[in-house]
Amino acid sequence: MSHQSSLRYAIIGTGAIGGYYGARLQRSGCEVHFLLNSDYDWVKTHGLRVASVHGNFELNDVNAYCDAAQMPEIDVAIIALKTTQNNQLSRLLPTLSEDGVILSLQNGYDVEADISAHLKENGVSVPTILGGLCFIGTNKVAPGCIVHTDYGHIMLGAYHKTGQRCSPTPLMRQISADFAHANVEVQAMDDLPMARWKKLVWNVPYNGLSVVLNATTDVMMADAGVRSLITTLMQEVVTVANAWGESVSPGESRSIAADIVENMLAHTETMGPYQTSMKLDYERGRSLEIEAILGNPIRTATQIGIPVPAMTMLYQQLHFLNRTNTHQ
Amino acid sequence: MSHQSSLRYAIIGTGAIGGYYGARLQRSGCEVHFLLNSDYDWVKTHGLRVASVHGNFELNDVNAYCDAAQMPEIDVAIIALKTTQNNQLSRLLPTLSEDGVILSLQNGYDVEADISAHLKENGVSVPTILGGLCFIGTNKVAPGCIVHTDYGHIMLGAYHKTGQRCSPTPLMRQISADFAHANVEVQAMDDLPMARWKKLVWNVPYNGLSVVLNATTDVMMADAGVRSLITTLMQEVVTVANAWGESVSPGESRSIAADIVENMLAHTETMGPYQTSMKLDYERGRSLEIEAILGNPIRTATQIGIPVPAMTMLYQQLHFLNRTNTHQ
Repeated sequence: MSHQSSLRYAIIGTGAIGGYYGARLQRSGCEVHFLLNSDYDWVKTHGLRVASVHGNFELNDVNAYCDAAQMPEIDVAIIALKTTQNNQLSRLLPTLSEDGVILSLQNGYDVEADISAHLKENGVSVPTILGGLCFIGTNKVAPGCIVHTDYGHIMLGAYHKTGQRCSPTPLMRQISADFAHANVEVQAMDDLPMARWKKLVWNVPYNGLSVVLNATTDVMMADAGVRSLITTLMQEVVTVANAWGESVSPGESRSIAADIVENMLAHTETMGPYQTSMKLDYERGRSLEIEAILGNPIRTATQIGIPVPAMTMLYQQLHFLNRTNTHQ
Repeated sequence: MSHQSSLRYAIIGTGAIGGYYGARLQRSGCEVHFLLNSDYDWVKTHGLRVASVHGNFELNDVNAYCDAAQMPEIDVAIIALKTTQNNQLSRLLPTLSEDGVILSLQNGYDVEADISAHLKENGVSVPTILGGLCFIGTNKVAPGCIVHTDYGHIMLGAYHKTGQRCSPTPLMRQISADFAHANVEVQAMDDLPMARWKKLVWNVPYNGLSVVLNATTDVMMADAGVRSLITTLMQEVVTVANAWGESVSPGESRSIAADIVENMLAHTETMGPYQTSMKLDYERGRSLEIEAILGNPIRTATQIGIPVPAMTMLYQQLHFLNRTNTHQ
């Protein structure tokens, strides 16, 4: 079946996530432009290598850039930086076409609002911002070399500053089709913020505690006290999420089902020893995504008057460990 | 001024605390019998060395034992073990004289109740139990070698299972006089449990967080978030302590003054880089005193219906770190 995309993509941050999805899109025939930093020279010369559970492939020739200003006009700028780098986005963003959009494939809550605020502050006009939640195990093991171990699907939604639901647009369907053609399942949805809250139910306890306790998921799950603490943290996230849903959309029952906690605990037990992304960042001496994963939801909780003592304590501990990180 | 004590002392656990106070008592003329474990051979041969801010001294000949059953009848059995070893006390306790007492110089809350319960469970008749809070900086740097760096005074009170105040007894005054003669200030008091609560206001946050955050007190105090977390933990302890005081002695205003938090924060800032005892234990691969310092107060909080979310989370984290401690 032939598929010719009319969209031009940019990958802003060609790491584990950006490199994987960008390579898939290019391999399927899309025009993709990759912004790189430390890996620029290697990728400019050698291209990208993907070792995937769905089969390995190489792209010997990619459009590599170290300067966003050199990129052509872009329709979909995929942000795959760490959220800790979003405060540099105004200089990392290429010129967008008239209906061009930003698609953030980042972890956390309200990252679209952060991006919007940052662009405004820097005098950049704010385009439509989409958010994509990636359910994937992928790792950059060397410059331009991506190892894809698990899953890969994306849940795609549009950001609106009021937090309201947004129906999928024709452009979102076009993006979904491009990804589908590239062997990536993309599910367009109308409730991006609630999907982000649901992902936080996992990310808050496991990412956070994996750094504080220096442990993989299986070791944490084997300890009754930590399992109880994980449950407490999950329940705090669910409580805030549901209160937020009610505050934004009163009476719409826009909420997370209560069994999500039980289901996520059970699912995590099937995962075996798993290093969270935050623990990998910590061990590599990188800044931790504390604000996107904990700071933003805590601030929302404060605004709507929901106490989150465990999340707050975890946030304070992580900030300290991030600041005093002596790894590397 | 001459002073002849009629009391015979045993030191159960000749470490930093037991070694220091026992050596002072013997040097001033008291009859002291020391129970040792790993240091027995060295101390039996060489005695004890104390390098103190008040002047160095050596005791070349001490009564050293590796078996409590070999000790003579004792009037005051000073327990200076880590609280984690209290579950072995029934075999570490010498025979007591008719009015003989136990004096626990241990950290934490309700350690006297734990000792009492343990002895009962093991069919040992329970003597009067006294508790002493040691305000001291001391460290065992080698077998039988104690370095005393700061302070040294003790607050001494009697334990009663109901938690009521207990007026100092003649025996307590005699012990105080022996210590005073040995150049150790001992203040007899009538409210041992509330004094233990007050000490917890410091021990809970600093001991606990120093392990979780792998930090000395000065580094923690320099971080605004951790300082806020320390304050939260201190306030939880004060709230439980006051609720406990009201539950045990209604209407007696048996409570901790609100300015204790501010005062302890200010005092800690004057201390410079300080390694807590729990952090030292952690680094030496020893069991952490989690139950005495956090478990017992949390159980009391639960009994009287006071939520302690930060203490609970710290407790869960410490148990995990204690169990997975890879130091040494």
